[in-house]
Amino acid sequence: MSNKRFNRGQATLASIHGHVGEGVMRTLQDVAPDFARMIVEFAYGDVYARGVLSPKERQIATLSSLVTLGHAPTELKAHIQGALNVGCTRQEVVEVIMHMAVYAGFPAALNGLLVAKGLFEELDGPRP
Amino acid sequence: MSNKRFNRGQATLASIHGHVGEGVMRTLQDVAPDFARMIVEFAYGDVYARGVLSPKERQIATLSSLVTLGHAPTELKAHIQGALNVGCTRQEVVEVIMHMAVYAGFPAALNGLLVAKGLFEELDGPRP
Amino acid sequence: MSNKRFNRGQATLASIHGHVGEGVMRTLQDVAPDFARMIVEFAYGDVYARGVLSPKERQIATLSSLVTLGHAPTELKAHIQGALNVGCTRQEVVEVIMHMAVYAGFPAALNGLLVAKGLFEELDGPRP
Amino acid sequence: MSNKRFNRGQATLASIHGHVGEGVMRTLQDVAPDFARMIVEFAYGDVYARGVLSPKERQIATLSSLVTLGHAPTELKAHIQGALNVGCTRQEVVEVIMHMAVYAGFPAALNGLLVAKGLFEELDGPRP
Amino acid sequence: MSNKRFNRGQATLASIHGHVGEGVMRTLQDVAPDFARMIVEFAYGDVYARGVLSPKERQIATLSSLVTLGHAPTELKAHIQGALNVGCTRQEVVEVIMHMAVYAGFPAALNGLLVAKGLFEELDGPRP
Amino acid sequence: MSNKRFNRGQATLASIHGHVGEGVMRTLQDVAPDFARMIVEFAYGDVYARGVLSPKERQIATLSSLVTLGHAPTELKAHIQGALNVGCTRQEVVEVIMHMAVYAGFPAALNGLLVAKGLFEELDGPRP
Repeated sequence: MSNKRFNRGQATLASIHGHVGEGVMRTLQDVAPDFARMIVEFAYGDVYARGVLSPKERQIATLSSLVTLGHAPTELKAHIQGALNVGCTRQEVVEVIMHMAVYAGFPAALNGLLVAKGLFEELDGPRP
Repeated sequence: MSNKRFNRGQATLASIHGHVGEGVMRTLQDVAPDFARMIVEFAYGDVYARGVLSPKERQIATLSSLVTLGHAPTELKAHIQGALNVGCTRQEVVEVIMHMAVYAGFPAALNGLLVAKGLFEELDGPRP
Repeated sequence: MSNKRFNRGQATLASIHGHVGEGVMRTLQDVAPDFARMIVEFAYGDVYARGVLSPKERQIATLSSLVTLGHAPTELKAHIQGALNVGCTRQEVVEVIMHMAVYAGFPAALNGLLVAKGLFEELDGPRP
Repeated sequence: MSNKRFNRGQATLASIHGHVGEGVMRTLQDVAPDFARMIVEFAYGDVYARGVLSPKERQIATLSSLVTLGHAPTELKAHIQGALNVGCTRQEVVEVIMHMAVYAGFPAALNGLLVAKGLFEELDGPRP
Repeated sequence: MSNKRFNRGQATLASIHGHVGEGVMRTLQDVAPDFARMIVEFAYGDVYARGVLSPKERQIATLSSLVTLGHAPTELKAHIQGALNVGCTRQEVVEVIMHMAVYAGFPAALNGLLVAKGLFEELDGPRP
Repeated sequence: MSNKRFNRGQATLASIHGHVGEGVMRTLQDVAPDFARMIVEFAYGDVYARGVLSPKERQIATLSSLVTLGHAPTELKAHIQGALNVGCTRQEVVEVIMHMAVYAGFPAALNGLLVAKGLFEELDGPRP
């Protein structure tokens, strides 16, 4: 049954982050393998997989929380990519981050937008 | 033109909070009337009224941020009501708050759920 | 197997919070029963039950985090009681909270101490 | 010498909070007397007494931090009173709190303003 | 009229940040041009331009909030420079950041001081 | 007597951080020498030296707070090393950080684990 949670978590994780998610899990393998398992089983297998909200709505919630926290730019970048993967447009991502200025303040929103800008530029590759 | 921002803000505010929003504005009148105007003009007139995200998606973003902040239960309650007003179900509201356990921790989510529970009970009135 | 996690979680929860923990779970039953189950299964069944740290050391970690967050006085009170239940002295609880002044600032520590004071007075009952 | 720090701290504390400061210290006496002493010696004797900034400027800094933290309304109220005591006008206090909307978000500023409003109403006494 | 807010904002922004402020706005142009406009119109045109507090007092409030947030070192650096530009001495800047140890904890203050140190060294150029 | 606090602080600092602590103090010398002294006298001389908690228990409290704050990775790294120095095993350090997922959220814990991983790799040196 734990296996079931892990498998469901891995499928959800892959549907949001593609192969990138595996990298994070590998990074944790030598220092805290059980934590990697908890991320898959609990965060993705128990929470993200619950339905009720659409994948897009869950990413909006995630982005909002990460921008508000302010201290997790790497996770924010991964979840902006995840938001694009599940169907958010870039404009919607930018809009969610801008919305945070009202609640978490302008610096949190500004830094979130710079993370988005950085990812968008990576995705677009070098200009010709 | 500022008038335009104020009018647009008031309309957006009313579409989310109904007449309750006016109460908050009145409370601020004697201590910081300009702040009341900024909430209407900037938060609701400039940000909430931008479109791109649906009203429901904006409330998901707002709830996520308020639960993550953890220190604004009164605003959270107002925005849970607002979320219901723009079409979120109670189950969706609860789901957004539960989702926050992953990012903001269990106490923030737990306290958010207790705020939701309190509002739902008020809305349902006394049991027969 | 999920049953195993739940049972282990309930045993751990009871060893820290006694019957009080059940009250919180009941409070959540009508609004978010799955969240109550997650608290038992994940927080207590997966994390608290891991060993490595002694129950007392886990409570020191929990108190430190809750004082630092600053926005969860009810959980803090429950975990101060939990710390006493697993063998911390009142003096040790007070010391952990005072230690937080260095990292989370004096207001967070002061408010934590007032929560501790309130609980200690409840435990001591009315003075003769 | 510690005596010197304590005396200097008590004088500074009294110059900001008047007799109210003593109340907080008494409240801490039975639960954490050393913490009360640290507040006087370190916060008021070492930090507030340093000069360089005027008492008014220090209160602006303190109010800004407390509004940003969001979780210490009781301390905020005490320091709004302290700001008035060292020469800030009510309008300046309100302005500092409004300024925080930009950095800490609207809910933090709104809640700070409501604390100020509550104190101002207490100071004004019942309306005739 | 919005033009009026923008012009007022740009003048205030320039009086605090000189030409550096323009760089941030340009950085935002392709990802979130409306956010750049909001910073100018709302933060600088509506809030900073209000008077009541002196420019120096506003910078003290801003530095205090940014140090307390802890997650915006780039904005903190820009506003330390801004504080110097509106008449704060280096010693006053350092003093405001040190004051934050009491409210936001030592790590927040320490990291703020390291940002100040970095800027001061840049300003002084290479030692002969 | 202040000398006594300083000497006691330096001894405590050295017992936790070895010679590394001196480096931080030197870094602060030109920008804020009094703050360096406050860290030694207050944080280490007054708080850490109080006893009641074992050095290991104090490090558990410190790590928990720093992971919860989320914005002080450099201090976190120094205190992970400090925890090892006073007798925590790597496994215990990892466990404290994992425990924070419940209270401060997964991103705070994940980033804390990556800091630990980085330090452990430095300590182990290059693989043969």
